[in-house]
Amino acid sequence: MRIGVVAPARTVSSESSLRLAAFMALIYPDHDIVFHPQCYLEEGHFAGSDAVRAAAFLEFANDPAFDAIWFARGGYGSNRILDTVMPQLNAAAGRKTYMGFSDMGFLLGALYARRIGRPVHASMASSLGKNDTGEAAGWALGWLIDKDRRALEPSLADGRPAAAFNLAILTTMIGTPWLPDLTDHVLMIEEVDEPLYRIDRMLFQMAHATQLKGIAGVRLGAVTSVVDNGNDFGETIEQIITRWCRDMKVPYLGRAEIGHVELNRVVPFGVA
Amino acid sequence: MRIGVVAPARTVSSESSLRLAAFMALIYPDHDIVFHPQCYLEEGHFAGSDAVRAAAFLEFANDPAFDAIWFARGGYGSNRILDTVMPQLNAAAGRKTYMGFSDMGFLLGALYARRIGRPVHASMASSLGKNDTGEAAGWALGWLIDKDRRALEPSLADGRPAAAFNLAILTTMIGTPWLPDLTDHVLMIEEVDEPLYRIDRMLFQMAHATQLKGIAGVRLGAVTSVVDNGNDFGETIEQIITRWCRDMKVPYLGRAEIGHVELNRVVPFGVA
Repeated sequence: MRIGVVAPARTVSSESSLRLAAFMALIYPDHDIVFHPQCYLEEGHFAGSDAVRAAAFLEFANDPAFDAIWFARGGYGSNRILDTVMPQLNAAAGRKTYMGFSDMGFLLGALYARRIGRPVHASMASSLGKNDTGEAAGWALGWLIDKDRRALEPSLADGRPAAAFNLAILTTMIGTPWLPDLTDHVLMIEEVDEPLYRIDRMLFQMAHATQLKGIAGVRLGAVTSVVDNGNDFGETIEQIITRWCRDMKVPYLGRAEIGHVELNRVVPFGVA
Repeated sequence: MRIGVVAPARTVSSESSLRLAAFMALIYPDHDIVFHPQCYLEEGHFAGSDAVRAAAFLEFANDPAFDAIWFARGGYGSNRILDTVMPQLNAAAGRKTYMGFSDMGFLLGALYARRIGRPVHASMASSLGKNDTGEAAGWALGWLIDKDRRALEPSLADGRPAAAFNLAILTTMIGTPWLPDLTDHVLMIEEVDEPLYRIDRMLFQMAHATQLKGIAGVRLGAVTSVVDNGNDFGETIEQIITRWCRDMKVPYLGRAEIGHVELNRVVPFGVA
């Protein structure tokens, strides 16, 4: 298998690609991973201009020599290339798996909406040895290369279609043509670096979104590095999610093993 | 004129109501301002529970003895009473003016969507002597009581319909039944306490929102207390708003004198 890595949001260091190449050589010597040089660019907030990031993504996604695209890093920016890349994806792009999470939810969601390829919530290509000990990246590769179902988020065993998003990214797609139809899907959400009042505000939008009315239920992933609210919000995160699910009239199905944590399990969009 | 003050989001101090009462006695001795006792409550993040805040708003809004509702303070929470209050407003509520901004945009927007009363973007009742020197609160009362058109945001002189929102509140309403139809309106937005990458992300949602496709143009209010982006974002706020308006294919009409600043001008929703 040949895996291409691009960075539609922020730049990555060459050390992180070397770490991953070493990991691949050790564990998956028969498989290739290729970091696009665009990954190391830096222009303002981003790994190169919007045009450069879009071109790198299109180059690898449209190349039949690659079996999968693994996104390098999140941090904000993949939304800015949607307009350019989505209409230009070819048949080879439609046969690929796309892996990543957090800000990459913009691309995964837009691909899923257009039935292009196989979008998969999983750890990033640059996270190995940085945000995790290799466990999450290992699960991502284990699922991608070996189809190891132990990598999957455990609740997927029930066979229902699912999708996973960072809550801020999900809510930013609401009301736009980029949000996929998630009717009858279990929706898993995770969040990082937000105070509770903002999480509550985002859940309000999720619960009231016309486009999300038909979802099967909600699971809550890790909510980490919660920012000080300036006061005691008055509810725990479990009370908050339970209340909004009640408002939304969908079942709260419990926790999910996803998020900005070491154990960020794999959630293929649709039926796993 | 009799003005009722309620706090659908966070609590206010009794000093702020005393300051405003003193200001009224001095400048508008023939007019009454009444703070609902709910304003001083505190429960978790909010000025009382959702049920208590909803009841206070309904009590004053539905009371024919009041001519206007002036919101006390923002800070998050007015979205949580929309479901309860909107279906219960009566004919007396339909004859009132509603003044506030920031988090109160949830109520102003929902009222405007339902053609209930006159929603007006203006400073809060508790801001006198705190966030401003009285100038903005003075303009709010000058417009409300004396119909002093000098209080209006200057660009409203062109006679086009307009609406003004905090950007975070506007984008949270996108895709929900609370966002009013703003076709042919000039949309004014302001923001506070956000890093540039998040402002960019919110403008992405505004620019791509299906519901906002028909707006006449965008004006940018004050963008204040900008949070450090962690890097040089690479664009100024003027470059950012210009780019997104180009993407949205609507004219960027320049700045607006609104925001979390001393001079926060009055923007009645619709034609002023």
